[in-house]
Parts: sequence; structure tokens; C-alpha cells
Amino acid sequence: ATHSLFLLPGDGIGTEIMVEVEKIIAWTNAEGLTDFSLDRGLAGGAAYDQHQTAITDEDVAKAKAADAVIFGAVGGPKWDDVPYEHRPEAALLRLRKELAVFANLRPAICYPALADASSLKRELVEGLDILIVRELTGGVYFGEPKTITDLGEGQKRAIDTQVYETYEIDRIARVAFDLARTRKNKVHSADKKNVMKSGVLWDEVVKGVAKDYSDVELHHILADNAAMQLVRTPKQFDVMVTDNLFGDILSDVAAMLTGSLGMLPSASLGAPDPTTGKRKAFYEPVHGSAPDIAGQGIANPIAMIASLAMALRYSFNMIELADKVEGAISAVLSDGLRTGDIAQDNRKTVGTEEMGAAILSK
Amino acid sequence: ATHSLFLLPGDGIGTEIMVEVEKIIAWTNAEGLTDFSLDRGLAGGAAYDQHQTAITDEDVAKAKAADAVIFGAVGGPKWDDVPYEHRPEAALLRLRKELAVFANLRPAICYPALADASSLKRELVEGLDILIVRELTGGVYFGEPKTITDLGEGQKRAIDTQVYETYEIDRIARVAFDLARTRKNKVHSADKKNVMKSGVLWDEVVKGVAKDYSDVELHHILADNAAMQLVRTPKQFDVMVTDNLFGDILSDVAAMLTGSLGMLPSASLGAPDPTTGKRKAFYEPVHGSAPDIAGQGIANPIAMIASLAMALRYSFNMIELADKVEGAISAVLSDGLRTGDIAQDNRKTVGTEEMGAAILSK
Ligand SMILES: CC(C)[C@H](C(=O)O)[C@@H](O)C(=O)O
Ligand SMILES: CC(C)[C@H](C(=O)O)[C@@H](O)C(=O)O
Repeated sequence: ATHSLFLLPGDGIGTEIMVEVEKIIAWTNAEGLTDFSLDRGLAGGAAYDQHQTAITDEDVAKAKAADAVIFGAVGGPKWDDVPYEHRPEAALLRLRKELAVFANLRPAICYPALADASSLKRELVEGLDILIVRELTGGVYFGEPKTITDLGEGQKRAIDTQVYETYEIDRIARVAFDLARTRKNKVHSADKKNVMKSGVLWDEVVKGVAKDYSDVELHHILADNAAMQLVRTPKQFDVMVTDNLFGDILSDVAAMLTGSLGMLPSASLGAPDPTTGKRKAFYEPVHGSAPDIAGQGIANPIAMIASLAMALRYSFNMIELADKVEGAISAVLSDGLRTGDIAQDNRKTVGTEEMGAAILSK
Repeated sequence: ATHSLFLLPGDGIGTEIMVEVEKIIAWTNAEGLTDFSLDRGLAGGAAYDQHQTAITDEDVAKAKAADAVIFGAVGGPKWDDVPYEHRPEAALLRLRKELAVFANLRPAICYPALADASSLKRELVEGLDILIVRELTGGVYFGEPKTITDLGEGQKRAIDTQVYETYEIDRIARVAFDLARTRKNKVHSADKKNVMKSGVLWDEVVKGVAKDYSDVELHHILADNAAMQLVRTPKQFDVMVTDNLFGDILSDVAAMLTGSLGMLPSASLGAPDPTTGKRKAFYEPVHGSAPDIAGQGIANPIAMIASLAMALRYSFNMIELADKVEGAISAVLSDGLRTGDIAQDNRKTVGTEEMGAAILSK
């Protein structure tokens, strides 16, 4: 095999939608379009149930060794009460950190066929195409101290720490500016520099990087205003770069605007290896494990399949094949096929397997 | 005078809309409906221009001595480059902290006459009435360390610290539950307990407080999901309680949904004084200083006037008069009067002064 993929389906609908990805890989391998070796691991609650930890050291090592990791989703009410350090999300956080995939690309695209599914007025979201570039390995997610201390007399003190260093901001800003050059040459940088010192440094470093990209327009926006403006007139944005916590919230808002949450993939990339030029990479749908509909065979596999397409594009430079997969998704939607989450009158509602099969047959 | 008000108009449109509040107070005083003594101070850029600081110690002392502070808005491009500790927002942060007004109530109400101004589909926001209860004196806004350190070789490290103690969460949760009892008996508590230790403590304390309010439904929601759900189906919410930073963002999203940003007031309340029962209180519009339209006499004074109404209600228990002011606002809107920000076909667009006068004459 020329390339290795490590699959971590996780929990809930993660396992169901990963099956459809496996079918596509089996087909591209059989057709000689790819030569992927596949391995599979456990993450989240699934790993906890077997190994009492959200992900084993062995699976982390396999993720690090693979050319790309394809991740489903983790979590569910079953694991609400597991100890904090073993909760399902810990798998995701550990993988992000150990793979050092600091650049999280979250496209928010409104598929024309689905514009009416948005809660926003059609004219505000039709044709929407925003790319949120979220810093993924720093900030309040990982800063120390991160503790709860018992102060006695029924009082506790909890501390989280947001830490950013210049190099972390510099490298994520460059990713955003580079991507803006392939799009509309416009970057909004969102922070709370009016309240946070990390925001002050963020803004200073981003403005410094901008000097190397005089062809790209840079706009500063406060994170609270960014959330508002996303709701008010989302099409004013092209690329938005922001920190880990604001990126978490703003990318969810952007995704929700599109009405296409079940359709949106994401890529998390590391720095290019100085000798091989290869980047560690991690692909996952934007949506979660949806425990409420898990096991019913009705989950939408499109975001998961689109995540594979992103892997083909960003990790393996298989542009044609990536286009082909994305084209198949569009074609199936144009044919009127819908899963339950995007069901419409006069359109055919199908299950996970039928949707996956339809995309494959295209 | 029986009650004292301290007015801080601030910058931009803050000064213009405060004029309309002054007219209303002059009228209620003249009619014998109130007996307010008034004093005025400078905040934000206005204070910086005169005193090289965002607010003077003297004005802070006056704010502390007053029965209620009525605040306009601060900031503008003119002060973009003043030193961090003197930036306009510092006035707001210092006042919140020194008055210890920990409970920030931000109603997001969709005025029926304005439902079409929302970017969301009418049916999703018509009749919307959410109350965001934001913790205002803790968290990452004030936690120490909050520093930028030069590491040499072009590298700096910025640190912000989110700190919450049990008592801070306990008291804001009680405010939320008490208010829910006067509404629909439903509280959503939003945090990131899957990533933040402060979220873990937040959730633990809120769940503890809930035991004293068995008549109120409590729902936990992750902050990123809360932002999404606000955009998707806002009417599922009644009261939402959350920390300072999430409250900043979520209350802005909620306000923007209503299409009535220029109409929304807010109240920030302290703990009742153990002997007098009085609470320090601070009232301000949700919108900012809008430097782009300042000085043109076109700003919407309604949020500012509604902030006065909130003061009448919460600080002075003048329920009838508060109802009267709010009724006048609704009546003027029903009559078809609009400022530019909420302009509609077939409605009359007026300036700040005319809108203020129309409300007063009601
Ligand atoms: C599951 C959770 C830890 C995660 C995050 O907060 O980053 C998720 O919300 C996301 O956006 O990928
Ligand atoms: C002006 C700024 C410091 C303030 C905040 O972040 O709290 C504002 O956004 C608000 O919500 O009142």
C-alpha cells in the first residue's frame, strides 16, 4: 500500500457513517484508484467500555504513524458520568495535541439544494461559502493550570488558563492567509482584545503576518461581534481565523447557518515535516455522535464521506478523485435524495446505507 | 430628592441617546412621578480625552454612591491606539467590578412590529422572549495572571486566566432560577464542561442550586451547542445562565436574532445590601457606541430609554411607571415610527430626537 489510513469511528452514529466511508475506500482500492492500507481503532465511549480510557496508547501510536486519520464522532449520555480524564472528548483532545494538528479548517458551505433548510432567510445564506480557520492545539483547551481546588467550607476554586505564544498565532495566521489566496483574498481575525491579553497578542501577530500578504485584505473583528455578524449578514465573510475556544463556537454558528450541518466535513492539519513535507492530518465531520438517532440507520453519512474527500485533497493530492467524490454528493442531492435530517417535501427520504450506496454508484 | 441617578453617556451615540433619557427624567420629576437627583460623569474615550483615563476615581466613587447608574456606550476608532489599561472598555470593566454587579440580565425580545427585521425566518423569532443571565464580575475577564511576557527572539507569551469559585456560581444560578420562576420555569445552563474545569465546577454548582428549585426545569447545554441552538430554534429557551465570556457571545447572538438590537436594554445587579436590602445597579443598552452613525442625530434611543425603564422596575420598584415607559415604546412602534436602523417600507423614519419626543408625549 502506498498510503495508510487509520479509522476511528467512535460512538453513536460515528460507527454507522464510517461504514459508508469504508465501502468507498474498498471501491477505490478495487478500481486501482487508490492503494490504501486500512487500520481501525476505538475512541471515546467505545474505547472506555473496553479499555477504561478514551483512547489507548496503542491507538494513539497508530494514529501518529498513519498518513491520515479519519474520525467519526464521540460521546453519549452513557458516558456522562465517567471520570473527567476518561470522558469521550478526551480522545479527541489527546489526538489533536499528540498529532499537533494545529490548523482546523471548517468550511461552512450552503448547498443550494438545502438553502431552505437554514433558519435564516434564503437570500442571506444562498451561495454562502465561509472557511473558519480555528487554532486547535493551544489556548484554554490545553493551558495549565487547569484545576479544581477544594477551599474547604463547601467552597471550590476552578481555574482554566488561556495561553498563546507568538509562534502559535503566526503559523495559524499563515494558514489562513494562504487559504484566502485560493479564495476571495479576505481574512477576518476574531478575538477579544478589548478584554483579553491573548487577544492583544493575537491581533498584534496577525497584523504582523499580514505584512507578508499585501494582496489579502485583513479585518479585525471582536469575537462577540463576529458571532452577531455571522447571524446578520454571513456572506460578508470569506476566511475567518480565530483561537481554539472562539473557533469552537463561531464555527458551530457558521455551520448551523448553512442548514447543512450533516454535510460539513473538517480537516485538522499539522506543520509540514521539514524533510518529507508531509503533514499529519485528521479528518472528521463537524456534527457530533447524535446519540438520539444512533442505531436506527438514518444518520446522514455525507459529512463523513466529504471528510474522506478532504483527506484525498489535502493529504494525498488526489484532486480529481476528491472532485469526483464531492461531485457524487452534489449529484445525489440534485437527484432529490435526502436523509431524515435534511428531509424535504417532494424529495425521497432514505437511510444511511441507501445514501452511501447512491453516492458510491455515482 | 429620594433617589439618585448617575448618568454616564460615554462616547459616540451614547451621548445622543442619553439626552432623550434626560428629557424623560425631567418630565417625570416635573410631574411629581419621581424625585430623582441627577449627576453626570465621563466614561470611555470622553474621559480619556479629558483625564487620560477611561474613568476617574471621582466618577467611580459617584457611581458607587448613586442608587443607579445609567450608562450609554463607550469606544470608537479614535481611541484604538490608547494604552490597553486606558482603553474605553476599561471604564465598563472597572465599574462592573467595583460596583460588584455580578448579575447581568440581557433580555432578547422580538417586538412583533419588528419580526421581519430579523435575519431568521419570521416564524422562528416571532414572540421570542429569552433572558440571558450572564455572570459579570468573574471568569476570564478578571482572573489573574493576565499578562504578556517577552520571551526574547521575537517570541511573546500571553496569558489569561478563567477563575470561578463556588459562591460566584451559586449566586448567579440563584438569580437565574428566581427569574425563571417569574417566567416559564425553565433554565438552560451553558458551559464547556467537556473541556474546561471551570465548566465542571459550574455545572456541579448549578445542579446543586437546582435542588432548591424543584419547580424549575434545568437543562445542561454545551456553550457551542447553545450558540447553534439559538440560531436553529431560539424559542426552545426561556432563561439561559452562563459565565462572563460565553454570556458575552451568547447574549449578542440572542440579541441579533430578535432583529431589535437597537431596542434591547440590560441590567447589571449586585447582591442586596444585608441591612438596607438595596442592590447596586447599572443599566445600559445592549448595543455599542456605533461610531459610524454618531453625531448624525439618527441613532435609535429606544434601548437607552428601555434601560431607564428597567431601572424604574428593578432599582426603584416603580412598576407602574416602568410599564408606562415600555407601553409608550410599544405604542410609538405600533404608530409606525421607526429610526433608521429599523426602517421599513410604509413606516415613517425619524431621528433620535423625534423618536424620544414621540415616546415622551405618550
Ligand atoms: C467535543 C469537543 C471537545 C469539541 C471541542 O470543543 O473542540 C467539539 O465541540 C468540536 O468543536 O470539535
Ligand atoms: C465592551 C466590552 C468590554 C463588553 C464585554 O465584553 O463585556 C461588551 O461586549 C459587552 O458585552 O458589554
